[in-house]
Amino acid sequence: MDTRIDSPLQVPFDGSFRLDTRSTVPASPLRDKVAKAQLKDTVKAFAEHQRALYAEDRRSLLLIFQAIDAAGKDSTIRAVTRGVNPAGFQIHSFKAPNAEELDHDFLWRTAKRLPERGRIGIFNRSYYEEVLVVRVHPEYLAGQRIDVPDPIDDLWTRRFEAIRAHERHLADNGTVIMKFFLHVSRDEQARRFLSRLQNPHKNWKFSASDLKERAHWDSYQHAFSEALAATSTPWAPWYVIPADNKPNMRLSVATLIEAQLRTMNLTYPALDAENRARLPEFEAQLKRELGLDGT
Amino acid sequence: MDTRIDSPLQVPFDGSFRLDTRSTVPASPLRDKVAKAQLKDTVKAFAEHQRALYAEDRRSLLLIFQAIDAAGKDSTIRAVTRGVNPAGFQIHSFKAPNAEELDHDFLWRTAKRLPERGRIGIFNRSYYEEVLVVRVHPEYLAGQRIDVPDPIDDLWTRRFEAIRAHERHLADNGTVIMKFFLHVSRDEQARRFLSRLQNPHKNWKFSASDLKERAHWDSYQHAFSEALAATSTPWAPWYVIPADNKPNMRLSVATLIEAQLRTMNLTYPALDAENRARLPEFEAQLKRELGLDGT
Repeated sequence: MDTRIDSPLQVPFDGSFRLDTRSTVPASPLRDKVAKAQLKDTVKAFAEHQRALYAEDRRSLLLIFQAIDAAGKDSTIRAVTRGVNPAGFQIHSFKAPNAEELDHDFLWRTAKRLPERGRIGIFNRSYYEEVLVVRVHPEYLAGQRIDVPDPIDDLWTRRFEAIRAHERHLADNGTVIMKFFLHVSRDEQARRFLSRLQNPHKNWKFSASDLKERAHWDSYQHAFSEALAATSTPWAPWYVIPADNKPNMRLSVATLIEAQLRTMNLTYPALDAENRARLPEFEAQLKRELGLDGT
Repeated sequence: MDTRIDSPLQVPFDGSFRLDTRSTVPASPLRDKVAKAQLKDTVKAFAEHQRALYAEDRRSLLLIFQAIDAAGKDSTIRAVTRGVNPAGFQIHSFKAPNAEELDHDFLWRTAKRLPERGRIGIFNRSYYEEVLVVRVHPEYLAGQRIDVPDPIDDLWTRRFEAIRAHERHLADNGTVIMKFFLHVSRDEQARRFLSRLQNPHKNWKFSASDLKERAHWDSYQHAFSEALAATSTPWAPWYVIPADNKPNMRLSVATLIEAQLRTMNLTYPALDAENRARLPEFEAQLKRELGLDGT
């Protein structure tokens, strides 16, 4: 079944993509109030599809979120899932890998968290960290104890191939994949860090390392650009979401998810033949027990 | 820290409880519309606490739901979690155990799904099935290949002890536990089955076995009564929720959860001393980068 959707936010599949051609502000932004109202309606439609996805129990949807710090991954995930049945989601945030995870191949720890059939899985960060933060900090490779090729760029190329093949396998087996890069500008990140620092409900998680990573801005942009170009495929497309305006960013993400679910033509399964044939008998029995059968 | 709450719905801790003394209808029901409005407000307060629980990252909350079919476990879980951040929940529905699970002790499969610190775990069914459905159908014990004592009641007594000790251990290690029994009447179950049969979006999951289990009504009531009496403890109390009226049932559950979270005195952690001391430096750096420092 072809479940592809079209969007100007999609990253082309021919490898020609360059991140610096995309804006961090939406082309025609809605006013915040309008975007918020539309988000609410979109999430409502989305919740309807989710129920059918669960009932159908044949396919799953995997949503991958990647971005630089403070782009809004957590709040976007919260916004697009709020009001939808939490039992239908399997959300996982991936932190730095632990010792057991480092003792496996780089797709192992996320594979264990893939959504079951009928569910929507959300990865807040993912195996893409292995071609992003690890590319910016190749010293992290020491923990993985693998042979690092010379030139090291061969490693990223091989990892892109491994990721494409892995996603292809998942898609062939009923997982529909969407990948979102939340594209925020350098100045907007600084403004968000500042406002975090100044909010006592938020500054508990701020640390010097946030600013240290910010100093690698250009290396991160380069790593994202290459990763998106190499791994946007018809079976697992990337979407670049302008992220400087939060209400519009959230609406863009929700709109894409709703469109994707709609394209999947989800339908409620029918009762199997045997039980269907016995429905009148079940109904009569229950009516009898309730004294509704006129006896 | 003492986090006990009081409620007339709580099952006493002295073993004197009998299920047939509790009503399936609320003592003073609110009109549906009022109950729904209050539920919304309660869930909002609850969402606030959840954020602090997550930030605190020291304790977790485990909510266990048990009931006869069609009492409303799924819809209650949906109602009390809707609108709250799904990333803060870890919801798991336990079905019949698989071969690997049967090859372990009866607390093994649920232990793997316990909530992480800072999260709210929800068990839709749980290890209590081992003293409920297995008690009604002792033939299921064959799959567990354990020595069945004679009289078999010794087995249930030992399992109650094991459960109390397990929950005590969890409580000692930061897990606050609440257990909900949704108490529905036999007639109300028949009415709900009937309406399921008649709804094409719902009848796909109906099967003859639902009516077969209904025939064991009295055995189930007995098993629930004994289990609740034996395992309601100060560190893991049971609550019997009148379940014939859905809006009131949901409100009761949400009200208890909100009261429990409130009693936990959740607070946002403070930034560690080193980072706190450096906040002005971080702020100055970001302002400089944004050209806000007046240079």
